Amino acid sequence: MKRSALFISDSTGMTASALGKLLEHFPHTEFTQIRLPFTDTPEKIDVAKAAIAKATEQDGVRPVVIMSLGNSALRTSLKQVDAYYIDLFNTFIDPLGVELGEQPLTGSGIAHGAMGSNYADRMEAINFTLNHDDGMTNSGLEEAQVILVGVSRCGKTPTSIYLAMQFGIKAANYPLIPEDFERGSLPAALRNHIHKIFGLTIKPERLHSVRSERRPDSKYASLENCKQEIATAEGLMRNAGITWADSTSRSIEELSAIILQRLGIQQK
Amino acid sequence: MKRSALFISDSTGMTASALGKLLEHFPHTEFTQIRLPFTDTPEKIDVAKAAIAKATEQDGVRPVVIMSLGNSALRTSLKQVDAYYIDLFNTFIDPLGVELGEQPLTGSGIAHGAMGSNYADRMEAINFTLNHDDGMTNSGLEEAQVILVGVSRCGKTPTSIYLAMQFGIKAANYPLIPEDFERGSLPAALRNHIHKIFGLTIKPERLHSVRSERRPDSKYASLENCKQEIATAEGLMRNAGITWADSTSRSIEELSAIILQRLGIQQK
Repeated sequence: MKRSALFISDSTGMTASALGKLLEHFPHTEFTQIRLPFTDTPEKIDVAKAAIAKATEQDGVRPVVIMSLGNSALRTSLKQVDAYYIDLFNTFIDPLGVELGEQPLTGSGIAHGAMGSNYADRMEAINFTLNHDDGMTNSGLEEAQVILVGVSRCGKTPTSIYLAMQFGIKAANYPLIPEDFERGSLPAALRNHIHKIFGLTIKPERLHSVRSERRPDSKYASLENCKQEIATAEGLMRNAGITWADSTSRSIEELSAIILQRLGIQQK
Repeated sequence: MKRSALFISDSTGMTASALGKLLEHFPHTEFTQIRLPFTDTPEKIDVAKAAIAKATEQDGVRPVVIMSLGNSALRTSLKQVDAYYIDLFNTFIDPLGVELGEQPLTGSGIAHGAMGSNYADRMEAINFTLNHDDGMTNSGLEEAQVILVGVSRCGKTPTSIYLAMQFGIKAANYPLIPEDFERGSLPAALRNHIHKIFGLTIKPERLHSVRSERRPDSKYASLENCKQEIATAEGLMRNAGITWADSTSRSIEELSAIILQRLGIQQK
């Protein structure tokens, strides 16, 4: 069955969109997602109402509307059109305000503004992570909160960036390469940082397939070489006392949650 | 007033954490955020209950608990401890299931698993974006959905990565450099892609401060040079018919929402 899901917000709509992830609990409904950010005037509410009406007509059924509008007059106006409304203010913010004994701020852009708490930290973490990708430099590693290690193409970079972007974690990453395998130990630069190192590993078949996309028919991508690198890397991590996780069937969200938990890092 | 906010999930807790952004509507409450992902057994529920009790004791007031637990027995067990519960299943998923006429999936990891819809697209977009950062290559630009342009250090890279990571958008970025200013036109490689180019600009004082962190007392960072580069870049974008936004006081979330809206890109 087809349905439209509209995300209507007076700001970026990022919080409403995040809730949209919950739609994946309904695999038999095929959702068309429509985002209407910055809906913060009566005129833009009219545009949103027209979009709801159009979606209803196209699908033959009223859409799901996830809305985050601080202004109650705009909320009331929007809801004149029939839809299944999930109203973040009515459902969450207002009742939470009663619990906390505090009037909520209702301006737009509170949750995702550049002036919000932690924003500067997140930007600094992203810069740090990009500058410490793929073992680019050893300088500043003492500032890192996490150092990911693993063979080339096992998922270190996207996981590092996710940690930085989402949580403001300074995450460096360091590839384990043939030089390390021959020496049989971690790169010297990492030896003082064991407590914040986390390993990633991957199944040989998957690594072979990922590397083959980049360099088909190379020794680097061969299944034989992938098997050997992974076995050696795991041995090396075991000897160094590093915990690791298998990235083969885990998303960067899952890996990040595992890493934060195992290293005992709480979001700021 | 101090309060703890616990995010208790049988999976990564990323959706619950995203809702945690709503806490920023209450600036007078100082929240300590505690994340308890992968809470998917009765034993781990006991750990979560102990954490709630401890938070209550420390703060002298019951905590806010944002929970996403698919298993209703675990939900019931958790709620035996007093807290202010925001239950994503009770509040959202179950009522939405009634509206859709569909039983929700209750397994863990549905919203953020590696097997979820769009995950492969997001990873491909992140790779594309990292490989097309800072004008690194002209090849493959026809695949880009967005090309950000602007002077060095105006926020192109983090915005591109956010677009890729959050929305699976292939976002290249291209710096406008003295060579372009002298020639008085966009780099030749970009001229066939005007419809998907979006410009970023920034206030000279802010750019001066950002650049000074990197290269203090350089000509590159001087206020005079920043002013000149920005004025020239804006002129160049205006001549090319490119729309732009000022990144000075906007977050990457805000910039991304503006870019998607102006270029008419809907999330897949």
